[in-house]
Amino acid sequence: MQIAPDAFFLDPHYKGSLQQQIQHIVSQGILAGRFNPGDKLPSSRKLSHHLGVSRITVTLAYGELLSDDYLCSRGRSGYFVSQSAPRRAVFEPTAQPDRPTIEWNRVIGQRYSSQVLPEKPSDWQNYPYRFIYGQADYTLFDHHNWRLCALQALGKKDFSDVTSDYYERDDPELVKFIALYTLPRRGIFARPEEILVTLGAQNALWLCAQILLTQRRTAAMENPGYPGLRAILEQTRCKLIQAQVDDEGIVYEGLPEGVDAVFATPSHHCPTNVTMPLERRQGLLDHARKNEYVIVEDDYEFEISFAKPPAPALKSLDSEGRVIYVGSFSKSLYPGLRLGYVVAPEPLIRELRALRATVLRHPPGQIQRTVANFLSLGHYDALVARMSQAFANRRTVMRGAIAEHGLTVAQSDTAGGSSFWMRAPDDVDIEETAQRLRTLGVLIEPGHVFFDPKDAPRNFYRLAYSSVEASRIAEGIRLIASQF
Amino acid sequence: MQIAPDAFFLDPHYKGSLQQQIQHIVSQGILAGRFNPGDKLPSSRKLSHHLGVSRITVTLAYGELLSDDYLCSRGRSGYFVSQSAPRRAVFEPTAQPDRPTIEWNRVIGQRYSSQVLPEKPSDWQNYPYRFIYGQADYTLFDHHNWRLCALQALGKKDFSDVTSDYYERDDPELVKFIALYTLPRRGIFARPEEILVTLGAQNALWLCAQILLTQRRTAAMENPGYPGLRAILEQTRCKLIQAQVDDEGIVYEGLPEGVDAVFATPSHHCPTNVTMPLERRQGLLDHARKNEYVIVEDDYEFEISFAKPPAPALKSLDSEGRVIYVGSFSKSLYPGLRLGYVVAPEPLIRELRALRATVLRHPPGQIQRTVANFLSLGHYDALVARMSQAFANRRTVMRGAIAEHGLTVAQSDTAGGSSFWMRAPDDVDIEETAQRLRTLGVLIEPGHVFFDPKDAPRNFYRLAYSSVEASRIAEGIRLIASQF
Repeated sequence: MQIAPDAFFLDPHYKGSLQQQIQHIVSQGILAGRFNPGDKLPSSRKLSHHLGVSRITVTLAYGELLSDDYLCSRGRSGYFVSQSAPRRAVFEPTAQPDRPTIEWNRVIGQRYSSQVLPEKPSDWQNYPYRFIYGQADYTLFDHHNWRLCALQALGKKDFSDVTSDYYERDDPELVKFIALYTLPRRGIFARPEEILVTLGAQNALWLCAQILLTQRRTAAMENPGYPGLRAILEQTRCKLIQAQVDDEGIVYEGLPEGVDAVFATPSHHCPTNVTMPLERRQGLLDHARKNEYVIVEDDYEFEISFAKPPAPALKSLDSEGRVIYVGSFSKSLYPGLRLGYVVAPEPLIRELRALRATVLRHPPGQIQRTVANFLSLGHYDALVARMSQAFANRRTVMRGAIAEHGLTVAQSDTAGGSSFWMRAPDDVDIEETAQRLRTLGVLIEPGHVFFDPKDAPRNFYRLAYSSVEASRIAEGIRLIASQF
Repeated sequence: MQIAPDAFFLDPHYKGSLQQQIQHIVSQGILAGRFNPGDKLPSSRKLSHHLGVSRITVTLAYGELLSDDYLCSRGRSGYFVSQSAPRRAVFEPTAQPDRPTIEWNRVIGQRYSSQVLPEKPSDWQNYPYRFIYGQADYTLFDHHNWRLCALQALGKKDFSDVTSDYYERDDPELVKFIALYTLPRRGIFARPEEILVTLGAQNALWLCAQILLTQRRTAAMENPGYPGLRAILEQTRCKLIQAQVDDEGIVYEGLPEGVDAVFATPSHHCPTNVTMPLERRQGLLDHARKNEYVIVEDDYEFEISFAKPPAPALKSLDSEGRVIYVGSFSKSLYPGLRLGYVVAPEPLIRELRALRATVLRHPPGQIQRTVANFLSLGHYDALVARMSQAFANRRTVMRGAIAEHGLTVAQSDTAGGSSFWMRAPDDVDIEETAQRLRTLGVLIEPGHVFFDPKDAPRNFYRLAYSSVEASRIAEGIRLIASQF
């Protein structure tokens, strides 16, 4: 059969090149049985004319389809669907349930959908004044070298390293780099056996909580603190203590006896950005020793410290192995990367690794190797340096605009980071303000999600400068101030 | 200061090019404070002479370091460490715990390290007769197009899609492809809202188990069955029923009343490879309806059905939304990819998604988009076709060798797959045999890990042909037979 050019039409929403769209149409048509072995394809001349694309585009697409054995070529007579082309059975669904007849309320044994997480519109990038936190800045990212590092990770040389299924280890190149280069910068000495790679810091915190906590145990977290952690701890059904936070970080004196694990962000408190001073750190470690609890240190964003030199990690002061350290690469690269790690004594790493194997096996090998390459060649630190420079500039602009418009910063001075923690007048419900600001093109983050939901103030908010151009900050702040 | 060429030495174990090794030495030297701003680098002539590499290699490395601002160039006077080069504080660890003083036995609340998983030596690829299961075959993989698809996923155009942090959705391109092209081939009709992308099938099964089961609920799994699933179900502390398996798959008649969820592999039972006939499928669905349980269908490896046309999925017969379907791309691509999906009614997907957000947020965006591209251009099915052809050939060779040497196949004929399920004489402990075979360069998989550990026979084993060349199969089988 001769396939008519009319069988081809271009989808304006197709993601990819014209050549790829032709490959897509032909291969999926063959797989679905619309085009059959022996069918003759339109000549490149006819198809290019019909689609309004260049003839070479069609020829290149046919060439690719040839090498995947979808097509074969019979010299001057043209291209045909190959007799040995990949085929797939397509089954008509016997039953298409219009609506499920199962009572899911009864079937679902455990619910998780009630958790509160910071929300952002999915088209946040189209807002001009996007004071939202933790998204990659397209203009600062090093696309070129990141792609080169990914390509190398996908090369034939590294194939078995990145494709194998392994539970008992991680990418040795990445673990070596973390041990030799990353951790010393935080004052931490660790052997490879004491490091576990995780699917981002969230996954690291989750794994630690599963191992350390049970329904009969007690955990403490900072209030305000990281909402992703609150969801984790609530799901363990442990007893959860809300620890107070002041200008020096978590206040340990008020912790009740019998607490088993304290989760803290000493270097850069979430969300107020304060750094815990040395004296408080020593005090916290003494308190932990006396009361026999362990500390899970989430060292997120330590790299972005452009204002003051960074303090070493809490774990660097830990002589007992009492501090479990959580780090992340997603913050400085991009959140969709999902790569973090835990540093802890071996008996704990062994359990974390076993649990990780059941839950997800391991973080994808190609991501681990890509990051290892990017780190090893110095691109990572060059990127962090570029980000720090940009963030320092944005912060100066933002501080000026905040002062000019009389907004209130609710934190002491910090070493850096990518946001300000703000307080609106007491009678303001910031969620309503945030809704109104959206219509003006301004995105801010209401702060109640960081607090114990039983007792969350409504007038705090976070203003991040990691995804907003410096030139737009002043106008954005003016718009926010106009709402109070 | 002039940096002497002696500061450079090449590591013969370095993974990467000579140029990259020079970039690594310089960037890490600067970051660690061994080289300081203003220091002059060896000339490309001197350094190339010292290292025994070409001068252009050094020049290219210096050029890359220039663009990352590690170096600056002062015309004819050469290269210097940049005044604004990325720096990092390095802290001496205050405390280096020789051994942790924490009693980890007391601190660890929940243990996971006792699970039994199939083991393989980490250097399995160096064994000539590697009858092990589920590893990617280097010689069949389409490196070229895979890398192109990864490159495209990492392009500027897709940047925000792959880098964003999102909980509430997956890559729309991947989900669309699964709904429109992958599932119809299994006879399944599903809307995007009924699909959740997971970190491999293991992660999909784990998520389902968490939602469906509690300590008060009952699950059934096949015996023998998938050991990764057994670990998952044991960790939920539900009541676990071992369901019998015969030549037609799981035997549902023996299931006790009150079972809440049955986990099965109808299309391709693990590990015996049998396909459940239509009548048994209808019976299983009727039984599920009558006894009000849900079925989790693990449709692993359905694509590798070269011997007979594949049967549609059990879910295609499901008119109630009672079957939860688990699929995977890792089997045909490579296990280290970690990408699978769940198809289920929306109320369940909502809970699975919320749990996934707490545990790991989402599978990395760049992996999702790379697979979407590879699928969309037809490369995936071309790869599966190539694999099927190779596997069909290897299976023929293996069947012949097995017959010639009088080994016993413990399964009925199957539609395909990548392994034979085998039985050694009753008095053989196959683990001992496997140990002896290793010394002969032969890797086989003892079968006890697939059985309920309380009552596991010691004489079953699995012989996979997915990672062994056809030319080596006969000799490998001869060596195995020589042990009985």
